[in-house]
Amino acid sequence: MGRLNRIGRGLMLAPVAAFGALSAMAQDAGVEDLEARIAALEGGASAYVDNSYLFLIGGLIVMFMAAGFCCLEAGLVRSKNAAMQSMKNVALFSVAGLMFWLVGYNMAYPGATIANGLFGIPDFIWKGAEDIEVGYAAHSDWFFQMVFVATAASIVSGTVAERVKLWPFLAFTAVLTAFIYPIVASWEWGGGYLDSEWAFSDFAGSTLVHSTGGWAALIGAIIIGPRLGKYSPDGRVNPMPGSNIPLAALGTFILWFGWFGFNGASQLAAGTFDDINAVAKIFANTNMAAVGGVLAAMILTGLLYGGKTDATMAFNGAIGGLVSITAEPLAPSMGGAVLIGAVGGVLVVLTVPLLDKLKIDDVVGAIPAHLVCGIWGTIIVAASYGNNITPNEAGDPSYVGQLVGVILTGVFVSVASLVVWLALKATVGVRVGDEDQMEGLDKTEVGLEAYPEFAS
Amino acid sequence: MGRLNRIGRGLMLAPVAAFGALSAMAQDAGVEDLEARIAALEGGASAYVDNSYLFLIGGLIVMFMAAGFCCLEAGLVRSKNAAMQSMKNVALFSVAGLMFWLVGYNMAYPGATIANGLFGIPDFIWKGAEDIEVGYAAHSDWFFQMVFVATAASIVSGTVAERVKLWPFLAFTAVLTAFIYPIVASWEWGGGYLDSEWAFSDFAGSTLVHSTGGWAALIGAIIIGPRLGKYSPDGRVNPMPGSNIPLAALGTFILWFGWFGFNGASQLAAGTFDDINAVAKIFANTNMAAVGGVLAAMILTGLLYGGKTDATMAFNGAIGGLVSITAEPLAPSMGGAVLIGAVGGVLVVLTVPLLDKLKIDDVVGAIPAHLVCGIWGTIIVAASYGNNITPNEAGDPSYVGQLVGVILTGVFVSVASLVVWLALKATVGVRVGDEDQMEGLDKTEVGLEAYPEFAS
Amino acid sequence: MGRLNRIGRGLMLAPVAAFGALSAMAQDAGVEDLEARIAALEGGASAYVDNSYLFLIGGLIVMFMAAGFCCLEAGLVRSKNAAMQSMKNVALFSVAGLMFWLVGYNMAYPGATIANGLFGIPDFIWKGAEDIEVGYAAHSDWFFQMVFVATAASIVSGTVAERVKLWPFLAFTAVLTAFIYPIVASWEWGGGYLDSEWAFSDFAGSTLVHSTGGWAALIGAIIIGPRLGKYSPDGRVNPMPGSNIPLAALGTFILWFGWFGFNGASQLAAGTFDDINAVAKIFANTNMAAVGGVLAAMILTGLLYGGKTDATMAFNGAIGGLVSITAEPLAPSMGGAVLIGAVGGVLVVLTVPLLDKLKIDDVVGAIPAHLVCGIWGTIIVAASYGNNITPNEAGDPSYVGQLVGVILTGVFVSVASLVVWLALKATVGVRVGDEDQMEGLDKTEVGLEAYPEFAS
Repeated sequence: MGRLNRIGRGLMLAPVAAFGALSAMAQDAGVEDLEARIAALEGGASAYVDNSYLFLIGGLIVMFMAAGFCCLEAGLVRSKNAAMQSMKNVALFSVAGLMFWLVGYNMAYPGATIANGLFGIPDFIWKGAEDIEVGYAAHSDWFFQMVFVATAASIVSGTVAERVKLWPFLAFTAVLTAFIYPIVASWEWGGGYLDSEWAFSDFAGSTLVHSTGGWAALIGAIIIGPRLGKYSPDGRVNPMPGSNIPLAALGTFILWFGWFGFNGASQLAAGTFDDINAVAKIFANTNMAAVGGVLAAMILTGLLYGGKTDATMAFNGAIGGLVSITAEPLAPSMGGAVLIGAVGGVLVVLTVPLLDKLKIDDVVGAIPAHLVCGIWGTIIVAASYGNNITPNEAGDPSYVGQLVGVILTGVFVSVASLVVWLALKATVGVRVGDEDQMEGLDKTEVGLEAYPEFAS
Repeated sequence: MGRLNRIGRGLMLAPVAAFGALSAMAQDAGVEDLEARIAALEGGASAYVDNSYLFLIGGLIVMFMAAGFCCLEAGLVRSKNAAMQSMKNVALFSVAGLMFWLVGYNMAYPGATIANGLFGIPDFIWKGAEDIEVGYAAHSDWFFQMVFVATAASIVSGTVAERVKLWPFLAFTAVLTAFIYPIVASWEWGGGYLDSEWAFSDFAGSTLVHSTGGWAALIGAIIIGPRLGKYSPDGRVNPMPGSNIPLAALGTFILWFGWFGFNGASQLAAGTFDDINAVAKIFANTNMAAVGGVLAAMILTGLLYGGKTDATMAFNGAIGGLVSITAEPLAPSMGGAVLIGAVGGVLVVLTVPLLDKLKIDDVVGAIPAHLVCGIWGTIIVAASYGNNITPNEAGDPSYVGQLVGVILTGVFVSVASLVVWLALKATVGVRVGDEDQMEGLDKTEVGLEAYPEFAS
Repeated sequence: MGRLNRIGRGLMLAPVAAFGALSAMAQDAGVEDLEARIAALEGGASAYVDNSYLFLIGGLIVMFMAAGFCCLEAGLVRSKNAAMQSMKNVALFSVAGLMFWLVGYNMAYPGATIANGLFGIPDFIWKGAEDIEVGYAAHSDWFFQMVFVATAASIVSGTVAERVKLWPFLAFTAVLTAFIYPIVASWEWGGGYLDSEWAFSDFAGSTLVHSTGGWAALIGAIIIGPRLGKYSPDGRVNPMPGSNIPLAALGTFILWFGWFGFNGASQLAAGTFDDINAVAKIFANTNMAAVGGVLAAMILTGLLYGGKTDATMAFNGAIGGLVSITAEPLAPSMGGAVLIGAVGGVLVVLTVPLLDKLKIDDVVGAIPAHLVCGIWGTIIVAASYGNNITPNEAGDPSYVGQLVGVILTGVFVSVASLVVWLALKATVGVRVGDEDQMEGLDKTEVGLEAYPEFAS
């Protein structure tokens, strides 16, 4: 069910409770005065304020995930590329904000659509008409949606690190955040094709945000090619360990922290018993999925590597678990959340070497954590709604419906990304030359080194 | 236009909206209808929502302290152990969440108790039955309590760093968060023995959280023994300086930030004049105690070391001050909070060398900051309630009552920790071998280095 | 007393207030009973609670900016001074808190003033009399104001890094936060001279906070002199690159995050349609100004340096954009916010080399970002209010009125800072000697190194 529907649900509850007795007839006594006072109380701004607050505070917490991605990615690249990676994250957050204002928001929530709701017709430049009817401050919704866009862009940044050119990457980010992501979001949260035709359900964006970022990253990694020296001609995979693991750990914690806003505030309302109970359960489930992801990844790596674990697998296990629960953080039990997250952690550990076998160079492991776990999390949603194979009359999510959403998103994002990456490759180029890669992108693209005094 | 004007404007709007119709005259009709509408308003979800919100937002802020501990500890260990320390913090937060769900919560708030309330009988696997009667969303309380458990576990992690084995440490964490901490918490926050028999008071956990973690850390440090080479046979103490002081500073700030949630949200309600005034005063006092701790530690080290200060003492001074005020952040004046924190800062500076004299190797100074200051903060609570020596009829905290809480907690946590650490030592072992310690735990336990390019 | 008890207490209060009249027996026409119930509802604590909440949560987010400044500055100094820079930030936040409690708050909001409102007469030691009339918890306002003071002090810290002595710097911080900043704040936010005489407008402190910090930093940089070796006698400027760019990026993101609290909570109320709409628009505009600052700085450096950008310029572009919008984050459109921020970004890029030409050594670029952009942002406020040249009868901001505020602040803060810096120079000295500068302040002032194992 789409976001707009859920907003509607939240808003309905208060009036039902408060205005239920309104149809009864008035009779006698000094009552009109009292009636006016009651009406004033009933008409209070409280639900509108609460909803807007939720978007602002939730959005703020999600905004901080940009810092988390920055730390994680800067920590997992080699030191000669860490300043570039840091600046790229600041820059992509800026590009995402600009484009989502210029085009993106109006693509995701278009006034009119064509092709059976597959594509919206945007007004350009978003205008925040305050409207009491929608139940929240317009700018608070813009802000909340914008930080989700930025998340999708951050995912791409990590995968293609250490060899992508700065400006072409930002150009890709502009298209991703102006068009590609908003079109996908419109299918579901805009009440479009997937929502109306397939009862597709993706609560906070396992597919819409994380897989979208993941597909764009995957295509980017293929088009740009692996880092110089990553794969030897003889088939050997050369490890290129991250330069600052404590920074990556901090990034992981920041993302974990931010995810409570990502999933929790996606309830979109918190002013009623039911809504706040839902937000609370989402917090608990979000945490337990991360727990499952970390522990499964650690135990599995411990088993595979004779007791030793791998810190980056633990970190990506957390993220994989979080992505896995994002499509449905409310319905499962806490034990179910642990399991869903644990499968995510296992998928991360198994997919990382698989990508290397395919010579797809994903510097930070974003494709396993965001794309693979995003698919897993989206499909398993059907298990929380009676394991329907196909959509039923009640509009419950089903395995087929979820799969359609996964595939449609995958095909569209992949094709669109391919077009953009290839266009960039054919014109300005997307890959840093071999010599510059050896010297490091900090010197060649950014003009200063990340750690000039810590000689390697 | 000035701020005061804007406040005035803001305050004006509500009355205008709410009471605008007040001058209309009363005439006739409709009391029953009005009554229903009033009842609907009175039955509003607002207090329930406010309380749950406080747990969720407060818990979220406390959750971020896990990142603070991670930064502080990773910054204060040597670089060869920093990846291990980082991963250990991610892992312990996961284990704490899992065990507090499986057992811990139901131990802390048990349905039935034995032995005069000393031990609860848990149901296993916590179930979040939403119940309007308790006044908050059940999952929001679980989340809030869980992040406190994780704090206790983080304390242990810092003390035993650089020589503890990963899996045995996590096993200890599991017992600590499933049984040891919850039993202590039940005595007070569960309404158990200390609360009912001794009028013991520990607002946010100077004893229940911080000393509990501190005792477990102390016993761990003794059983595991000091790091290889820390204490020379000739009695010399060999400094092993932390590898990343700016990271430790960031960790300190994150903990300071998180402490506002730790203490402020422990008011447990914020929907009334009295409650929000209390939360506000707790914020102010929490800050002033940290201020007192930092400045006292800096001035004292400045005096002791001829003008030079010591950054890690300043950081631990902040934490010592914060722990000191945690048992009673509401009752003292702001000046009192400065003094309580300042004594905490002094205790940190004096206790750190004392531990070295006893050859107890506390890598990050957690025992001074959390255990010693936790005891100090707990006992001085009695000063805010009339300096009673023994519990009185009014149920005020007293010096004896507070001391009983401190001692009972100390004895129980120490004995329980001793049993667990010894059992682990006797079976799987708890200490990394000398050669592996020399090589660094990053290579031997984690399989990657924290800073592979920054050769030491 | 236990937590459960406190929950009970908290829950009791609301019913007492709301349902107090319930026990009265219904008699006739029931109107009196209904009236009492309505009055109880109308007298609800909700606006008071909402306002206080905003100060506490907003203040907490701004408090975290102290961590942001710490990371940014520690990342931009050389490694031999990074522990000093880290500790100095912890210490200055402590000094600011202490002095704003002892003197500052009562200077900013004085009971009585002299010299036409130019100077207030403070009571010493702030007392938090809770007063329902003011509409918020007194301690929540103190906390919110205090974190703004600390921001001003953090700005100075960055500029004079790597050669200022620790204790004299803290002495300057004490005077800045006890007297200089509070006097400036009183002129506007205290309802004093600039507010009443010039209709000066500075929403969240482009001038009052950021320029104040900037002027104090500028005078400090001049009096203390540049770092040893920064400017060769032959006029060459020797770059001294920051030692940890990813840390500086994290600091930038934390500041960006904190700025939503800085500007958003400066609306000072959020309980009505208009207020929450305002807060939401402020969030959007704050973000867009940072976006404009980053992109303008990156594009301009790209153009100036042949395609290469400069990471620190991007970071300072974000901060410059944020400072620029701080004086008026509500009135401009989002497009206007982008432009205002973009001009800020351009000013940063142009002013940094200018300072070097003047041999004013500003280590982190705080003067361009906070002082220059603070002036720009303050003056352009008039454009949002009809481009008045001089104050009009309606009390709208005007170019002349804004300029008077900028100049008055500049003259007062510069003169006051000059007196304090010179007094410190003449007595205890403010500059670290050449040999100690070469060795690094970590060893000579702090007693430990920031990164002892990462040899330079």
